[in-house]
Amino acid sequence: MITSPGNEKVKYVRELAAKAKVRKKEGCFVAEGIKMFLEAPEEEIRSVYVSEHLHTLLHSSADIPKNYKACLNKLDRLGFEIVSNPAFGRMAETVTPQGIISIVSEKKYSLEELLTGDRKLFVILENLQDPGNLGTILRTAEAAGVGAIILGNDCVDIYNPKVIRSTMGAIYRVPFLYTDGLSATIGLLKDRGIRVYAATLSDRAREYDGCSYLEDTAFVIGNEGNGLTKETISKASEQVYIPMAGQGESLNASMAAGILMYEANRQRRREGI
Amino acid sequence: MITSPGNEKVKYVRELAAKAKVRKKEGCFVAEGIKMFLEAPEEEIRSVYVSEHLHTLLHSSADIPKNYKACLNKLDRLGFEIVSNPAFGRMAETVTPQGIISIVSEKKYSLEELLTGDRKLFVILENLQDPGNLGTILRTAEAAGVGAIILGNDCVDIYNPKVIRSTMGAIYRVPFLYTDGLSATIGLLKDRGIRVYAATLSDRAREYDGCSYLEDTAFVIGNEGNGLTKETISKASEQVYIPMAGQGESLNASMAAGILMYEANRQRRREGI
Repeated sequence: MITSPGNEKVKYVRELAAKAKVRKKEGCFVAEGIKMFLEAPEEEIRSVYVSEHLHTLLHSSADIPKNYKACLNKLDRLGFEIVSNPAFGRMAETVTPQGIISIVSEKKYSLEELLTGDRKLFVILENLQDPGNLGTILRTAEAAGVGAIILGNDCVDIYNPKVIRSTMGAIYRVPFLYTDGLSATIGLLKDRGIRVYAATLSDRAREYDGCSYLEDTAFVIGNEGNGLTKETISKASEQVYIPMAGQGESLNASMAAGILMYEANRQRRREGI
Repeated sequence: MITSPGNEKVKYVRELAAKAKVRKKEGCFVAEGIKMFLEAPEEEIRSVYVSEHLHTLLHSSADIPKNYKACLNKLDRLGFEIVSNPAFGRMAETVTPQGIISIVSEKKYSLEELLTGDRKLFVILENLQDPGNLGTILRTAEAAGVGAIILGNDCVDIYNPKVIRSTMGAIYRVPFLYTDGLSATIGLLKDRGIRVYAATLSDRAREYDGCSYLEDTAFVIGNEGNGLTKETISKASEQVYIPMAGQGESLNASMAAGILMYEANRQRRREGI
């Protein structure tokens, strides 16, 4: 059992959670909570820490909730370390931790992998900064049938603990790729026959629901405050906008992404594809 | 100038920001930041606090940004108090405050007011708990042309500072109403000819985009973790669901609301109404 808040493993988990650089070097990330443990692919879990408190709960009676039973089974298969409550409190990022932390290997996808498959639907993100927005985009992308997320290197780290939590597990399932050259990647997607729509507020843009997304499609979403750069807009096949009533200046970035993704999803479902 | 972090006004603002009960008693709320100050209707602003730091910036040169100029003009008209940087830091909720805090009168709407107008589009919220979700729903509602938000008393307080911030100003413009009896209110809306769609994950539900929202429409959205109660679902005219690919269990509550609102908006725009 890990009892000291100063234990090396406690420090390691904290570093992993706090620093993108450490995650990159180690090739793994921190996933907190029962849901994130249960949804993590077993072969990608490197280690699991369970608080004394949760450990007691898991063994409190035969009549425990279903997700606790699933936890117990998975813990039995993978092995784990018990962490005293004070040490666990130090290890955890959340204010009221659920008592389980998994260290999970990062996944790497190549552009060629992402480009396989029919009826492609991609989301491309430029300079997206808010972890909650990125997590929500991943969660929604999985539901809308998006094949992959492509991120400029100026976006927030996808393995940031706040991103992970708001993906609700989609982090394990939606392929993604960071790229140094967003413009070049957009060019390459266009060369492969993917129509790239830049989401803007410009009056040169078309109403988003006036376009057909039945063929291979990618949506480009920009920074929360500043939108897309001119360079990225000019690289896209076309600009689309979401009409807005009232006096608001813009939609939340993840909301805009979600509305676009689900319009593509809707059109494809209506056509039975 | 307010110089002491222990000043009564500093305490008052902190209390207002922290406690729904105090807001209710006082009939006002705290709006932080330049945007929220600029968008607040003048007649609803009770007082304004400006940090020494921002005050200096505003007077630093003739060549200040456009929103600073708008700030100066509005401050001139309304009057304000300068607050020393340490006292302002104590007053503010955000970690890096922009240096301006407005105390704004709460608005009260009656159900009858909300029920005026043609082509009604409402969003009804049951037990919504996350302030960011509520703020995003308000922001998106304004853009989608929603006429009003109706909230069960079990929802988070709409004047919570986190809600206010994530509305990006829509709090001043989207009418809303809290109700003790959500079921009764839904019944009343139906009596007035409004079709009420409960967003669920049930297999009894229809695909959301298979319904017509051209007539008077209300969407009911439930709690982030538990969805809608059985009672509320049974009161609705019909259940709708948003089809989901992948293995996710649900969409984020504000995302689900946004997709529904924009489907109604899309249908109405396509029909030119």
